Amino acid sequence: MLLCDVGNTSYHFLDEEGDYKQSVKTFDPKTITQKVYYICVHSHINLELKKLENWINIATFVNMQHYYKTMGIDRIFACEAITHGVIIDAGSAITVDVVTNNIFEGGFIYPGVHAMQNTYENISSALKYPFNYDIDLTVLPKNSQDAISYGFFKTLYSEVIAHQKDIYLTGGDAQKLLKIFPHAKLVESLIFDGMKKVLKEIL
Amino acid sequence: MLLCDVGNTSYHFLDEEGDYKQSVKTFDPKTITQKVYYICVHSHINLELKKLENWINIATFVNMQHYYKTMGIDRIFACEAITHGVIIDAGSAITVDVVTNNIFEGGFIYPGVHAMQNTYENISSALKYPFNYDIDLTVLPKNSQDAISYGFFKTLYSEVIAHQKDIYLTGGDAQKLLKIFPHAKLVESLIFDGMKKVLKEIL
Repeated sequence: MLLCDVGNTSYHFLDEEGDYKQSVKTFDPKTITQKVYYICVHSHINLELKKLENWINIATFVNMQHYYKTMGIDRIFACEAITHGVIIDAGSAITVDVVTNNIFEGGFIYPGVHAMQNTYENISSALKYPFNYDIDLTVLPKNSQDAISYGFFKTLYSEVIAHQKDIYLTGGDAQKLLKIFPHAKLVESLIFDGMKKVLKEIL
Repeated sequence: MLLCDVGNTSYHFLDEEGDYKQSVKTFDPKTITQKVYYICVHSHINLELKKLENWINIATFVNMQHYYKTMGIDRIFACEAITHGVIIDAGSAITVDVVTNNIFEGGFIYPGVHAMQNTYENISSALKYPFNYDIDLTVLPKNSQDAISYGFFKTLYSEVIAHQKDIYLTGGDAQKLLKIFPHAKLVESLIFDGMKKVLKEIL
């Protein structure tokens, strides 16, 4: 079975042998002839994929009752993957979604690592430091690098742990954020896990 | 007595009649002939002011032992103004500083309202919403505008209240943030208060 999570920058495939990515700029989905079960956050590409008979959009198989209309389909499938917990999906944005007994409770959007680094730099050249992932978040900072690192990480951390649930980390910067959330479960396949779970119910 | 807090964009004066601002781009400090007690975050302007005999930099009168070298002098004087509490100074950056029994414990830097608005917009046009200051931060969001508003405000809120201290709000966006921190004390004159307190000890 071939699965594909189409993001803003790449087609992310998963088959029996593993996962691989293709750029949305260069990849032609017509080159695939077998059946592909997909989700897609990219509205323009989605229109193209709808024309292809072997590409099956599985977004339609999710009960949308508890989600909201403008919520990214990748967030929805990550939520489908778990029964209880907080999901941190760290990409260009960091989305944080809370699931309680299989029901999506709500979620929020925080800037991603790259975006936040730019934000501090643009406020002042005096704040142009790389984030310190080894920062001790139990101590208030007394230097500029830690002051921005704490500002970015600890605020997110304080809010996430307030929900007192298991934490699932996924997305391109998940590995980095594991230093900030050492007790989180790193599940890089979370969206695919959600896709498999939804497919299991319908196939 | 004339006080002046020189920021990155303006000379902020306070005399017996009230406060007023002058742009750093157009104002000539030589036009003032009376004695001015000032602080200045702007290193280039500070060099110019040092040449003027009637401009007295009062940064030198603060015991710097508990502060750190690259910490903005405006943050330091806000800390000098209080004996115990958390200071939120909401400008181009939002600085959060904790003072316990007259001692600066440390602080962090979070992006300001304007910077954060740009950050979300730049991540995706789908996140181009004004922040919702009337958001209910006790409920997890289920729409995009609240998802970014919660991401910006609630993370900051969760961290600030974790310190369990009185909250002092100051800076250009203090009034706006009073909606997020309704129990905070709005003290627009906080930096001037710190300047007066330091002057009281030396004059």
